[in-house]
Amino acid sequence: MNGERKAVVLLSGGLDSTTTLAIALSEGFAAYAITFRYGQRHDAEIDAARDIAQRMDVRQHIVVDMDLRQFGGSALTGDIEVLKRTDVSEIGDEIPITYVPARNTIFLSYALAWAEVLGAFDLFLGVNALDYSGYPDCRPEYIAAFQSMANLATKAGVEGHTLAVHTPLIDLTKAKIIRLGIELGVDYGRTISCYDSDSQGVACGHCDACLLRLKGFAENGLQDPASYLG
Amino acid sequence: MNGERKAVVLLSGGLDSTTTLAIALSEGFAAYAITFRYGQRHDAEIDAARDIAQRMDVRQHIVVDMDLRQFGGSALTGDIEVLKRTDVSEIGDEIPITYVPARNTIFLSYALAWAEVLGAFDLFLGVNALDYSGYPDCRPEYIAAFQSMANLATKAGVEGHTLAVHTPLIDLTKAKIIRLGIELGVDYGRTISCYDSDSQGVACGHCDACLLRLKGFAENGLQDPASYLG
Repeated sequence: MNGERKAVVLLSGGLDSTTTLAIALSEGFAAYAITFRYGQRHDAEIDAARDIAQRMDVRQHIVVDMDLRQFGGSALTGDIEVLKRTDVSEIGDEIPITYVPARNTIFLSYALAWAEVLGAFDLFLGVNALDYSGYPDCRPEYIAAFQSMANLATKAGVEGHTLAVHTPLIDLTKAKIIRLGIELGVDYGRTISCYDSDSQGVACGHCDACLLRLKGFAENGLQDPASYLG
Repeated sequence: MNGERKAVVLLSGGLDSTTTLAIALSEGFAAYAITFRYGQRHDAEIDAARDIAQRMDVRQHIVVDMDLRQFGGSALTGDIEVLKRTDVSEIGDEIPITYVPARNTIFLSYALAWAEVLGAFDLFLGVNALDYSGYPDCRPEYIAAFQSMANLATKAGVEGHTLAVHTPLIDLTKAKIIRLGIELGVDYGRTISCYDSDSQGVACGHCDACLLRLKGFAENGLQDPASYLG
C-alpha cells in the first residue's frame, strides 16, 4: 500500500468515463469507481458500468442511488422527451434539455465524500468542453472552482493535502478521445453513450450523444462497436 | 408570483436550521425546505423537520433519501460511537468524529439542483463557525468557495443571475442564535439537535450538540423546552 495513490473515478458506463478510467489506470492510480443511479430510464448504463469495472483493474466499484426526479427539470430523468436529430450539425449552442440541474456538482460531491473516507486526493471526471459546450458544469472554470471548494470542504485540505479534480478529456474532440482510448485498450463495444437506449443498452443512433459518438468513430475511420437500433 | 423571491432552506429539524428558516421567512423569501435522510440512526429528526415545515410558512418541503453509510467514516451514520461528555469545556478543537465527509457539500449540491429547477437564486444554510470550528465545511471561506462554484455550475450563473449562499448564523454564538430565534417566534420545543436522541426524539443531554445547546439556553437565562433523558 506504501506510496499507492488512490483515485476516485466517476464511471457512467459511457465512452468518456470509460476512457477516463483507462487514463487514471495508465497513470498508475489505484482506481475506485463510482456510478450513480439517478433516475435514468433503465439500468442498461449501470450494467455497462459494472461490466467495465469488472473487466478493468478497478479496486472497488460502488453504485450510489439518488433520486433527482424529485427535482424534475431534465430529459434524462424522464420529464421531457429526448430530441432526435438526423445530423450532428443540428446540435446548437443552447443549454441542452438533457442537462440535469447541478448533476456534476452532486456527483463530484459524492466522489469527494468517498475520496475523503478512502484517503484519496484525486478525482477523475470525463467531462468534455468541446462536445458539451452547452453544459455549464462541463467548463474548465467550473472544474477549477469545484476543486478550490473541495480543498476547503474536507479534512484533506485542512491537513495540508491537495485535492485535484482531473478532467483529462476536457479539451479533446470525440475523435481524439476514441483514439486515445483505443491506444489504452478500451473496449468501446461495452460502453453506452445513448441518451435513450433500450433496456438492453441498444443505442438509438439519433440523440446528440449517439451522433457525436458516431462522428468520432467515423473521423478515425472506424466503426463504432456498440449496438445501434435498426 | 411577480417579484417573489424563492429560497431553498436546508432544514434538519435542529435548532440552527429552524432559526435559519425563520430568518429567511422574516426577510420575505418564499421558503422551500429540503431535508436529508442520509443514514441517521432513526427518523426523529426527519419527523421534527416535517412538523416544523408544516407549522412555519413553507411553500414546499421535500425529504431526499441518500445513503452516506456506503462511504462509512462518521459517527453520525453509525460507524463510530458518539462521544459523551459531562461539560462543554471538554469539547476540543479537533475535527469531531461526528463530522460526515463532504456532507454540507452534498447537501448544498442538492439544494442547488432544486433551486435551479424552482428558479430560486438563494440558498440558506444554518452553519455556525463558532460552535463547530472543527468542521471544515462550516467555515466562511468554504461557503464563499461553494458560492463561487455554484455560480459557474448552473444555468442561473450562465444567464446572468447571482446565486447566493446565505449563512446568517455563521458568526453567532448559540446563545445569540437562540435569542434571535425566540424574537422571531421559533418554538424550540419542536427542534432536535442531539447526535444520539432516542427514537422519540428525546435528547441524550451529553453529546456535543446537547451541551452547546443547553449552554446557549442557560446563557439566556432560559430553560431548553426540548425533552431530555433522565
